[in-house]
Amino acid sequence: MGIKKSDVDYSLYLITDRNILKGRDLFQAVEEAILGGVTLVQLREKEVSSLEFYNIALKMKQLTAKYGIPLIINDRLDIMLAVDADGLHIGQQDLPISVARKLIGHDKILGYSVSNVKEAKQGEAMSADYLGAGSVYPTGSKSDAGKPIGLDELKKIKESVKIPVVGIGGINETNILEVKQTGVDGISVISAILGKKDVKSISRKLISLWKG
Amino acid sequence: MGIKKSDVDYSLYLITDRNILKGRDLFQAVEEAILGGVTLVQLREKEVSSLEFYNIALKMKQLTAKYGIPLIINDRLDIMLAVDADGLHIGQQDLPISVARKLIGHDKILGYSVSNVKEAKQGEAMSADYLGAGSVYPTGSKSDAGKPIGLDELKKIKESVKIPVVGIGGINETNILEVKQTGVDGISVISAILGKKDVKSISRKLISLWKG
Repeated sequence: MGIKKSDVDYSLYLITDRNILKGRDLFQAVEEAILGGVTLVQLREKEVSSLEFYNIALKMKQLTAKYGIPLIINDRLDIMLAVDADGLHIGQQDLPISVARKLIGHDKILGYSVSNVKEAKQGEAMSADYLGAGSVYPTGSKSDAGKPIGLDELKKIKESVKIPVVGIGGINETNILEVKQTGVDGISVISAILGKKDVKSISRKLISLWKG
Repeated sequence: MGIKKSDVDYSLYLITDRNILKGRDLFQAVEEAILGGVTLVQLREKEVSSLEFYNIALKMKQLTAKYGIPLIINDRLDIMLAVDADGLHIGQQDLPISVARKLIGHDKILGYSVSNVKEAKQGEAMSADYLGAGSVYPTGSKSDAGKPIGLDELKKIKESVKIPVVGIGGINETNILEVKQTGVDGISVISAILGKKDVKSISRKLISLWKG
């Protein structure tokens, strides 16, 4: 039952944002992204009621489960538990990571946002399963992303821990290869996929650049 | 350890709202309200990060525990679990009540917002421990409170269930006695207490009107 943590492929990690979809259907876009090659999906919802978040998460769980793709919930541990998602991603403004781990248990994937080596080491020590490190480049998708850390810092973060590190922030088909050269385990994108008309094609392009 | 559900006194149920405090300290106001006679505290926070909600809830738990007053968290089941609060209050736009009960267990207090007999019976059937019924009167404190249900509907709700019912919405020292005549188990207030300069005095006045 469920997804084994050791089997997770962090190569192409899609984070959702309905604003970027500008009215296009979220589930259809995510399904196309999965068909194109996305290996992990994080559901990120701000400014919705708990009931709406729950309903979206429930439907998303059905979709990702159909393809055997792990579903990670952003921030809201209650929603993660309520839909029995595969994991939780928390940032520096979310629940403390030690509290989150205690509540979700060790079978669930726990991701943690970091922007420097110190936070990365803390996250690893606090039993994060992977790190989202960034923002690598400037980005408009997340207003709370902070100043870009750049490729050198990303490389330092990757080298400072043993757990998988995913680069995030402003990554797209033009810079994916230089991100790959830092040695990270994958890239996390929002607008590079959901901002495009043909979600499936761009996903296929990104994954083939990454794996190629 | 913790509060026994059967011991809970629903007479004077304070819901927090930092906006109404206009900069006055939340913890000081709640402590004064407890000293004045408040029997239950619900922490309600919207528009804050999960980390901030957690930190406020943790501090509030220490305060209410000091006085043996139950702390109920509004909406956010994750925050409730994270600080091991005494209960959770959910509304019609929050997690489904059956899902919430499953996740918090039967030792925790589960409250449910209702505005008619049908919802009240559903809440009771779904193992709510108490109902918050309203809005009894027009109110400015909660933008999502809906149309006032009035005293007759409040009485019908109370008579339709066996679990405690607390009237909510626009209740203050001028109408508390007519609310009491409906037979409900208590009143829930925000601005009637937190909107006053002397939080302790008004709490004392409300509880003595209710118990008198």
